[in-house]
Amino acid sequence: MKSICGVEGVRAFGIKEGKFGLALIKASGAAAGVFTSNLVRAPPIILMEKRIRNGCLDAVIVNSGCANAYTGEQGYNDAVRMGEIASRELGTDPDHVGVASTGVIGRYLDLPRIEAQCHRIAPLLEHSHQAETLAARAIMTTDLTEKHALIRGDGFSVGGITKGSGMIAPNMGTMLAFLYTDADVPASHLSSTLKQAANRTFNRIVVDGDMSTNDVALCTATGFAGSVDYGKLSRALEECCRMLAIQIAMDGEGATKLLEVSVLGAPSEEEAATVARTIVSSPLVKTALYGEDPNWGRVIAAAGRAGVRFDPDAVDLRISDGTSSCPLVCDGKIVVDLAAAKKAMQGKKVIFLLDLHNGPGSATAWGCDLTEKYVEINGRYTT
Amino acid sequence: MKSICGVEGVRAFGIKEGKFGLALIKASGAAAGVFTSNLVRAPPIILMEKRIRNGCLDAVIVNSGCANAYTGEQGYNDAVRMGEIASRELGTDPDHVGVASTGVIGRYLDLPRIEAQCHRIAPLLEHSHQAETLAARAIMTTDLTEKHALIRGDGFSVGGITKGSGMIAPNMGTMLAFLYTDADVPASHLSSTLKQAANRTFNRIVVDGDMSTNDVALCTATGFAGSVDYGKLSRALEECCRMLAIQIAMDGEGATKLLEVSVLGAPSEEEAATVARTIVSSPLVKTALYGEDPNWGRVIAAAGRAGVRFDPDAVDLRISDGTSSCPLVCDGKIVVDLAAAKKAMQGKKVIFLLDLHNGPGSATAWGCDLTEKYVEINGRYTT
Repeated sequence: MKSICGVEGVRAFGIKEGKFGLALIKASGAAAGVFTSNLVRAPPIILMEKRIRNGCLDAVIVNSGCANAYTGEQGYNDAVRMGEIASRELGTDPDHVGVASTGVIGRYLDLPRIEAQCHRIAPLLEHSHQAETLAARAIMTTDLTEKHALIRGDGFSVGGITKGSGMIAPNMGTMLAFLYTDADVPASHLSSTLKQAANRTFNRIVVDGDMSTNDVALCTATGFAGSVDYGKLSRALEECCRMLAIQIAMDGEGATKLLEVSVLGAPSEEEAATVARTIVSSPLVKTALYGEDPNWGRVIAAAGRAGVRFDPDAVDLRISDGTSSCPLVCDGKIVVDLAAAKKAMQGKKVIFLLDLHNGPGSATAWGCDLTEKYVEINGRYTT
Repeated sequence: MKSICGVEGVRAFGIKEGKFGLALIKASGAAAGVFTSNLVRAPPIILMEKRIRNGCLDAVIVNSGCANAYTGEQGYNDAVRMGEIASRELGTDPDHVGVASTGVIGRYLDLPRIEAQCHRIAPLLEHSHQAETLAARAIMTTDLTEKHALIRGDGFSVGGITKGSGMIAPNMGTMLAFLYTDADVPASHLSSTLKQAANRTFNRIVVDGDMSTNDVALCTATGFAGSVDYGKLSRALEECCRMLAIQIAMDGEGATKLLEVSVLGAPSEEEAATVARTIVSSPLVKTALYGEDPNWGRVIAAAGRAGVRFDPDAVDLRISDGTSSCPLVCDGKIVVDLAAAKKAMQGKKVIFLLDLHNGPGSATAWGCDLTEKYVEINGRYTT
């Protein structure tokens, strides 16, 4: 097991037919969710924001290929019906079914197809590695790989699958993430824990700066492992979300490299996160990464427009490939060893460490390079 | 005359040697400036913010190829010396010389080269179309065309040259713009007029969302035309800035199309501008533009994350090629005529008109498409 089926009480399956996928996950328990803060919210998001207030879920149904976004009242009714389709097949309460959609905006759901797919896979749900992988694949759109994480805690587990590759600049949950734990924890606690974890992980990845209309992360606690230390659960959930978030950044549309930016010495954690997000979002930093050009000037220039106060003449900036690191700027002075800096740009992962020397706040954000492939993928998406 | 030499009292010349250009413009009069709001400011910006308080300029010296940014105390002294070089050649007060730089960040100025170039071109300054064109070319970096504008007012003129192609998301002036008018107007009035004009024009173009460390717009009033109606001057200056700003957007790095987004019905002009800027900045809108894909869902999704309140179910969205327009969304309902919408995407200029129906505020922003060429240009810039 590598993800959700590593958690007791979770069964899953998925199917993908061309662009159109469907995943079903059955797991009963206390549940919490975080949602996109885009003003334009897809009907399944509007539905789930209400439904999650029940504090429990029995199952989740997710389709890919059509986002059911900007589809108004019909879209809302379709989302409700999609949940009913799952509840009928699984014999659960329709009010306890999670519904999520991802794909093209402004198109209506093909409910007959979803009903047929659901009918085919409902009998196949199982607690296996193959099943969790099929579910993770079914929710992919422009993703190239399925994304999963499993954290073995102290007597409990936290596992999740996610998808996302473009339109990634979440500010709540990310595209779609489905998290499970066998810990026994009330929905209210799960909710605050999930919010903090999402804020430090999914909300700190940027592929292209476009926030989706459909971002959602749902977490269900099956309770099979009994009561646990909340601090440990919180750390495990955050670790699980971080592993998933980094996989989204690595699989950013057209990406060839992962970019990690750690900012320290900011007045607060939120301000450190703002600077880190601004740097990983910068098209000039992203193209320099692609060109393996240690253009630290673009990193400093991006930090300077983040809206956070610091003294540009007092900062330290280092670059690292994850194994060794070298200084670029020290106390505001340029100290680049160009050969070493270029070498650090050549790996699959490039890390910038920026110390603002202006407080105790630190945060890390993740992104990827901007390549011709991103343009190609998005210039021809709907057609 | 097409630009600055259309204004009485202005003489110019420029030279370009490989990546390294130098322009000299001589014109005496009341002067005002607007500058980047990036926290990381290049030394010439720091120098000019102080110097412009004198309220007058006799000349401007501008080099391209090296931004003299993040160069600390040495960079500041170099900027002062660059001004002195011009003042010696032109026989003017060094405190009345404008200094600007554009190019790679983190490199020191090659003052001997600048001195030699200045010495060569100072005797050649003239009031001619050829001279203004050479000056406009000398300040180009990744720009493909020189950019100029001339407005003939009621008994006065306003002309300008500008440069800028990448790192364009100004929030004050834009990259570099040099504006001249023969109107007789005090520096204090020129300053407030320039601020408003820049805010409505240069601050509303986005090529890549990266704000430069070197943005500056300087305006000098030579007074040759005597006193004028301030309202008319203000409108002419804004029109001149708009013409220059649109040329920057059209010449965005790798761009093939101009994107114009007009937002109306916002609570205020500033909020309309925020929505319009968010849309023209969206990588997904920009790539759809490149792919000639009328993906209006991305336009609405970008509007939704701009942080401005409106009812997504009440908006109107139209697309136009500048000659005919067709509806995409009407009262929040999808009404796309796909063939007509696709046709509207095929020209060199694509206009979206978004009515939020939530107030009297309106604003227009300009951008361009995101192409493989942008990635290519910026992946290999420093090397």
